[in-house]
Amino acid sequence: MTVLTGSDVPVRNTNDWSPQPPEQPLAVVRPAGTDDVSAALRICHEAGLAVVPQGGLTGLCGGSRPIADAIALSLERMVGIEEIDADAGTITVLAGTPLAVVQRAADDAGFFFPLDLGARGSCAIGGNLSTNAGGNRVIRYGMAREMTLGLEVVLPDGTVVTSLNKMLKNNAGYDLKHLFIGSEGTLGVITRAVLRMHPKPACTMVAMCALKDYAGVLALLAAARRDLGPLLSAFEVMWPDYWDVATQQVSGVRNPFEGDATTHGAYVLIEALGTDPAIDVPRFGTWLETQLELGHVPNAVVAQSMSDAAALWGVRDACSEFIQAIGPHLPFDVGLPTADMDDYARRCRDDLAARIPGARSMYYGHIGDGNLHLIAWLPGAAEPPKQAIEEVVYGLVREFHGSVSAEHGIGTLKKPWLGHARTPEEIALMRTLKKALDPKGILNPGKVV
Amino acid sequence: MTVLTGSDVPVRNTNDWSPQPPEQPLAVVRPAGTDDVSAALRICHEAGLAVVPQGGLTGLCGGSRPIADAIALSLERMVGIEEIDADAGTITVLAGTPLAVVQRAADDAGFFFPLDLGARGSCAIGGNLSTNAGGNRVIRYGMAREMTLGLEVVLPDGTVVTSLNKMLKNNAGYDLKHLFIGSEGTLGVITRAVLRMHPKPACTMVAMCALKDYAGVLALLAAARRDLGPLLSAFEVMWPDYWDVATQQVSGVRNPFEGDATTHGAYVLIEALGTDPAIDVPRFGTWLETQLELGHVPNAVVAQSMSDAAALWGVRDACSEFIQAIGPHLPFDVGLPTADMDDYARRCRDDLAARIPGARSMYYGHIGDGNLHLIAWLPGAAEPPKQAIEEVVYGLVREFHGSVSAEHGIGTLKKPWLGHARTPEEIALMRTLKKALDPKGILNPGKVV
Repeated sequence: MTVLTGSDVPVRNTNDWSPQPPEQPLAVVRPAGTDDVSAALRICHEAGLAVVPQGGLTGLCGGSRPIADAIALSLERMVGIEEIDADAGTITVLAGTPLAVVQRAADDAGFFFPLDLGARGSCAIGGNLSTNAGGNRVIRYGMAREMTLGLEVVLPDGTVVTSLNKMLKNNAGYDLKHLFIGSEGTLGVITRAVLRMHPKPACTMVAMCALKDYAGVLALLAAARRDLGPLLSAFEVMWPDYWDVATQQVSGVRNPFEGDATTHGAYVLIEALGTDPAIDVPRFGTWLETQLELGHVPNAVVAQSMSDAAALWGVRDACSEFIQAIGPHLPFDVGLPTADMDDYARRCRDDLAARIPGARSMYYGHIGDGNLHLIAWLPGAAEPPKQAIEEVVYGLVREFHGSVSAEHGIGTLKKPWLGHARTPEEIALMRTLKKALDPKGILNPGKVV
Repeated sequence: MTVLTGSDVPVRNTNDWSPQPPEQPLAVVRPAGTDDVSAALRICHEAGLAVVPQGGLTGLCGGSRPIADAIALSLERMVGIEEIDADAGTITVLAGTPLAVVQRAADDAGFFFPLDLGARGSCAIGGNLSTNAGGNRVIRYGMAREMTLGLEVVLPDGTVVTSLNKMLKNNAGYDLKHLFIGSEGTLGVITRAVLRMHPKPACTMVAMCALKDYAGVLALLAAARRDLGPLLSAFEVMWPDYWDVATQQVSGVRNPFEGDATTHGAYVLIEALGTDPAIDVPRFGTWLETQLELGHVPNAVVAQSMSDAAALWGVRDACSEFIQAIGPHLPFDVGLPTADMDDYARRCRDDLAARIPGARSMYYGHIGDGNLHLIAWLPGAAEPPKQAIEEVVYGLVREFHGSVSAEHGIGTLKKPWLGHARTPEEIALMRTLKKALDPKGILNPGKVV
């Protein structure tokens, strides 16, 4: 076990990707294995010393940001693939392993590990699990939770709980792993995981569709679910405000509907994964032609190559380059019932503009999963008025019975807003769990609840 | 709220389907709604009176069997579909609603609710959730847990926790529903649920395959996963001992390989669900022909009609008629890593015969899910020697790092064997949760942990 203090604390361990200033931890502890994690937690538990678990430090809400006077427990040395079981379709990994390494190992074994997000090269799988990461393919494969079969976890007092289950079905007592998935390191430290791999798709079909309005989007979603069935792997909606910035202001992004002078009401990127190119590629093309003939989709472009597909995804991924296009802005990640998203977007746009003169906002998201992303900014302002924007965004989330975090988690940044999405009874039950598992409150204190 | 005592207690409330004698509860309480459930629990909590939640009473392990001096809280009056949200793909139901009613409502709305089991007409959805029911299509759709988006639950002290989430993605704090799914009514009483519906498949393809040995089964599973991909909805293996009893001793079951004099090593029923009969039916046929040509599958029959498909499923479902064929027997539902199932079956068969002269056993299961069913009996005996059989079956489960219950749960019947599948640390953590949520121990005491 390595312990670094004072000026030996690496800069990387002083913050995550959340927009907050760095914080110096008391020390960075870097265990070499589960026994070290257990020993470190036992010592801290006895001493009443707070501990912040750290993975790849790519979280957006402050879940792994250090706390002054607390130990940062970084799992960066616990890296590796321990086993691939082709018959069970499982991969067993150490928690510090970067997501991209897990993806590659599954691929090398002839399988597919579908969890994917922008930070894939630096985020750790243990962090993906403790934040229950989502991403683009949730509509088909679920969140990180749905890809997890077994876990090894160290409790705050150092107890190692090993549940490295490989079976899809196991009803022998409580399914304990769900306590630790998505609880952002507040109940235990994940050290190992058994993950479910999927068969490798043989072909990827991608299309961009222009639609008249949100009713058309909902109709297209219903048709895609029905006709593409389980092949449907992404259904990404972009409102016109997003589309215009992405295609006109971000360098390297091409408008696939160049020359189309119509003002469209919404844009949808559809992806499907097939098992046989000879069957599934024409099926996808025929399906889309039918949607055009039925009048549901005024315009559409189907990718004819991998580079076409990448270009279409480029419009959707342009959001990561918005800092150049629009300057400082606040990104949100709210959950909403699918049917209400357009009403929410309209209300939010109007309310933001009314509350903050000159404020702008744009909307996009995984609507089939109930997940809307939005970006708000005040052109020309060095910093967007955070409190006022959050009050509008989360106030409407409460009104629409949505969630203040669909995928990024709560951490410290969204903690003030948790009550906008969860009832007092739910929050009280979360506190009961926290108290039962961590009675001294040493694990990631002040985060989530 | 109805309260029935003494001779007014209906016989149906005195037992579930587990092989145990009936038990008279102190009273049967039949709440009309969540408020009644809350009031009943609050009163019992104050009085320190034990409560056994009851749904359709079809459980196989004693989870809802009454306890003397305890209240039976039957949700049988809380029946109904509250909402279908076609855009979100969700159905909101009261916990006492029979599974078949939920299936039918989804179907009427143009959707598919894939959870299915033999007791569908009488089991309640709340019971399906509290036992995390499985069934035949887990390989494609997951367990009851994976179909649940939101829950309303009443805690032992009467607190109502409402988390009727409709979104696939919601990371705002701990995901509390997983505490109550699969914990067999020991942590709270489920009163309402938001369930995820799926698109309705347009066609069903079914085939029965004969294979040389288990290595061939594993190769066929890998090929089915790869080539049928997400269309694969069932992969049911039957060992020859099961096959022979099912096809020769159960009336109404026809051997689809009649006239084939080869001694096969294993049989597999494969089902796939497609979205377009014109594409998916020929795809399935071609795939199977390829397997025959490659020599993986010595013989196969593809269903040409719904009645063909039903006949093939009839062989797999024959197990429910075994009482007529073989007399009294003990059914098991163990979890095992897929690769080890044949070794387990061989060892179990030999060890049972060695330990109990004349004992027989047979094997079948959902191998892709890691779930093996086995049936053990002693021909001619009025009652099979339960303890000796369980020692062999569960002793080997421990040796193979399996689960003593893949889908039926623990209840009271399997409680003595929980330690064969879970570590002392896991069981201690289950007890910590039980104590935190139910400090007075009034909810389903003595069950699971």
